[in-house]
Amino acid sequence: MGIKLGILGLGTVGTGTVQLLQDVVGRHPLLKEIEIYRVGVRSLSKPRAVELPAGAITTDLEAIVNDPAVDIVVEVMGGLEPARSLILQAINNGKHVVTANKAVIARFGAEIFTAANQAGVYVMLEAAVGGGIPVIQPLKQSLSVNRIQAITGIVNGTTNYILTRMQTEGSDFSDVLADAQRLGYAEADPTADVDGLDAADKIAILASLGFGGRIHLQDVYCEGIRQVSKTDITYAEKLGFVIKLLAIAKKTSSSPLSVRVHPTLVPKTHPLASINGVNNAILVEGEPIGQVMFFGPGAGAGATASAVSSDILNLVATLQTSTAKPNPLLGCGHQHYSEIAPIAELVTRFYARFLTKDQPGVIGKLGTSFGNYGVSLESIVQTGFQGELAEIVVVTHDVKEGDFRQALAEIRDLPAIDSIPSLLRVL
Amino acid sequence: MGIKLGILGLGTVGTGTVQLLQDVVGRHPLLKEIEIYRVGVRSLSKPRAVELPAGAITTDLEAIVNDPAVDIVVEVMGGLEPARSLILQAINNGKHVVTANKAVIARFGAEIFTAANQAGVYVMLEAAVGGGIPVIQPLKQSLSVNRIQAITGIVNGTTNYILTRMQTEGSDFSDVLADAQRLGYAEADPTADVDGLDAADKIAILASLGFGGRIHLQDVYCEGIRQVSKTDITYAEKLGFVIKLLAIAKKTSSSPLSVRVHPTLVPKTHPLASINGVNNAILVEGEPIGQVMFFGPGAGAGATASAVSSDILNLVATLQTSTAKPNPLLGCGHQHYSEIAPIAELVTRFYARFLTKDQPGVIGKLGTSFGNYGVSLESIVQTGFQGELAEIVVVTHDVKEGDFRQALAEIRDLPAIDSIPSLLRVL
Repeated sequence: MGIKLGILGLGTVGTGTVQLLQDVVGRHPLLKEIEIYRVGVRSLSKPRAVELPAGAITTDLEAIVNDPAVDIVVEVMGGLEPARSLILQAINNGKHVVTANKAVIARFGAEIFTAANQAGVYVMLEAAVGGGIPVIQPLKQSLSVNRIQAITGIVNGTTNYILTRMQTEGSDFSDVLADAQRLGYAEADPTADVDGLDAADKIAILASLGFGGRIHLQDVYCEGIRQVSKTDITYAEKLGFVIKLLAIAKKTSSSPLSVRVHPTLVPKTHPLASINGVNNAILVEGEPIGQVMFFGPGAGAGATASAVSSDILNLVATLQTSTAKPNPLLGCGHQHYSEIAPIAELVTRFYARFLTKDQPGVIGKLGTSFGNYGVSLESIVQTGFQGELAEIVVVTHDVKEGDFRQALAEIRDLPAIDSIPSLLRVL
Repeated sequence: MGIKLGILGLGTVGTGTVQLLQDVVGRHPLLKEIEIYRVGVRSLSKPRAVELPAGAITTDLEAIVNDPAVDIVVEVMGGLEPARSLILQAINNGKHVVTANKAVIARFGAEIFTAANQAGVYVMLEAAVGGGIPVIQPLKQSLSVNRIQAITGIVNGTTNYILTRMQTEGSDFSDVLADAQRLGYAEADPTADVDGLDAADKIAILASLGFGGRIHLQDVYCEGIRQVSKTDITYAEKLGFVIKLLAIAKKTSSSPLSVRVHPTLVPKTHPLASINGVNNAILVEGEPIGQVMFFGPGAGAGATASAVSSDILNLVATLQTSTAKPNPLLGCGHQHYSEIAPIAELVTRFYARFLTKDQPGVIGKLGTSFGNYGVSLESIVQTGFQGELAEIVVVTHDVKEGDFRQALAEIRDLPAIDSIPSLLRVL
């Protein structure tokens, strides 16, 4: 028994991790070097699906991160506090950390990695993005010889499940959400998922790794899926698109990094278009590699336990073979913050749906207003009627978002325009 | 300049690798530690797309692998010999090796890894499978905490390109092959690709990594795509399948490892069904992770250079930080050979197409013969006529291949049967 773990939390992920580590036959032989030494929980009386050695389980989480015998602290408790403080304390005590906590890393990554670099320890976070899909370590290692151009991901299983069902069933968002909550695919408070906050945490982490700079979470533009309607899904379908909640980090040579989360029309032929249900996928574009995509289960006890355990395995291998000098392919050493482009500077295609009074010349007026701001249209179609109002769907060519918004402001004031119920970006 | 490379070969992959390593701004900073010290070529007079330092280029490949100053030998020359001998000589001289040579590794991996383990050096082969897609290192590292159950890949871009075009254009194999050769997607001698040999090399390597034992290449069952007809693609389509050349390594608890390459009917909803053109994808199934898939360009200078360079980067990081003890997540240490199940023991579904005399009762006779050998049918459909012959398509339930073959032998002797033009396995 070489390496002693102190595990913080014995919920779904913690239990899955303990189960994997207690059942090592047929897995990597190095896992046998690991001892589950302490497990910190909130309540000792709660029944557990795993058996632990007498004395291993405790409610004193601070004692775990302060225990000199613990080599690696595995933080799988979730939430911001006390997770952040315990991680920092573990680091300050010279312990390596494995965490699945995207919220803590996205918000306090700078503080945590600064402390880790000072203490000469590793903070591993494969489980924080994409569940079991190996994406963090490939970004740090195999793909890091590339100049990364874009990372585009479906990184939230709940919203992808909801959008997939809306697509296949023609159902409304609120109905599918209610059913997803009943089935356990969405939480009672669905805000973090459906408003895109969870995806924003994850793309901030991926952007930091892929583009080599820290990310202020407040710089990440974030729009959720509450406003996606079945009407738009139907029109998108007819135009050759599906609607996905994408998390995007993209860099062009002429502008700062763009990091954003929003529902997006994705061409049906695009690799991300066929990612359905609770699955996640992360598409990385780089030079010279081109496009590579990682696909798999974005959540769940087994998948996440796989990622947590692979980080532990990586640390065990490193601790057994390395000298004092840290391995640069495991660490996260950026010191500076990346400049993030404001959303108004984004150049993208747009999809917009208008309800207009049924008057001759409305399409001409729309076209004129768009033209006033240099917005060039790919298509403009009167798709039907909603009561007495005509419905018009527009897809633009690439346009600067700020210019497009100005055109919309002018259009909104046209007497013929009733409302603009939908506005979505197109990949 | 810490680490000196001796590169063997300056063809497409070698040139791409040199270009990447000579242009490191915006890539991993550790690449700056690498010096392109020697490059071995066949002809000094051939014009090159890269500039090399005076004296770096040489036709004396043996001198490179014997040069005490060389730390890492990068074998990107291809072919069996002298590649194998040079790799072995480099290893015996204590040099680490990076290779893109699937043919050498699949045939001589045992000899090479035994030598490498004795010499205490690493042999890295990310580029040997899946071009730039990170799959070798994830199998060794992140996924190795899982019990791998199956690895299923589209690992040959040429055949996937041909099958995709046959599917979308309704063309014949020979026409598409000729066009692919004209366009440079298939070689003048297409045997290694279209007969499945290249895919067999690659699945042997993946199976060895995923299931932890060496593989005798002659144990890998291998069937190419020459016999796939546009007729079968059309019927498969109607039945809800696409036809892909799959490379499969699969282990069930009750039987030995099955390693095989053959055209396969893949359900349209399966993640591999939508992998088109020259792309590759590798689906890994394991416990507890479930299914993860890696997708990307399976060939090409840039993609392969990315994989070769990522191996070099990994070695540089390891050489800078490790003590004498080798890192177990980079090596390939299996000593034993895996037992491979004979193809007759395979349990799978089959698709078969029969041409029969147009007599009453033919379907009944087919059904009786199948029943005699315990072959249970999922569907049996008379699909049409070819001249005076009726065409019947059968899809079976899971059946042992040996039993199915016996039934076919009996059916072939029935007076009503003209021929059995197609026989394909179903995923």
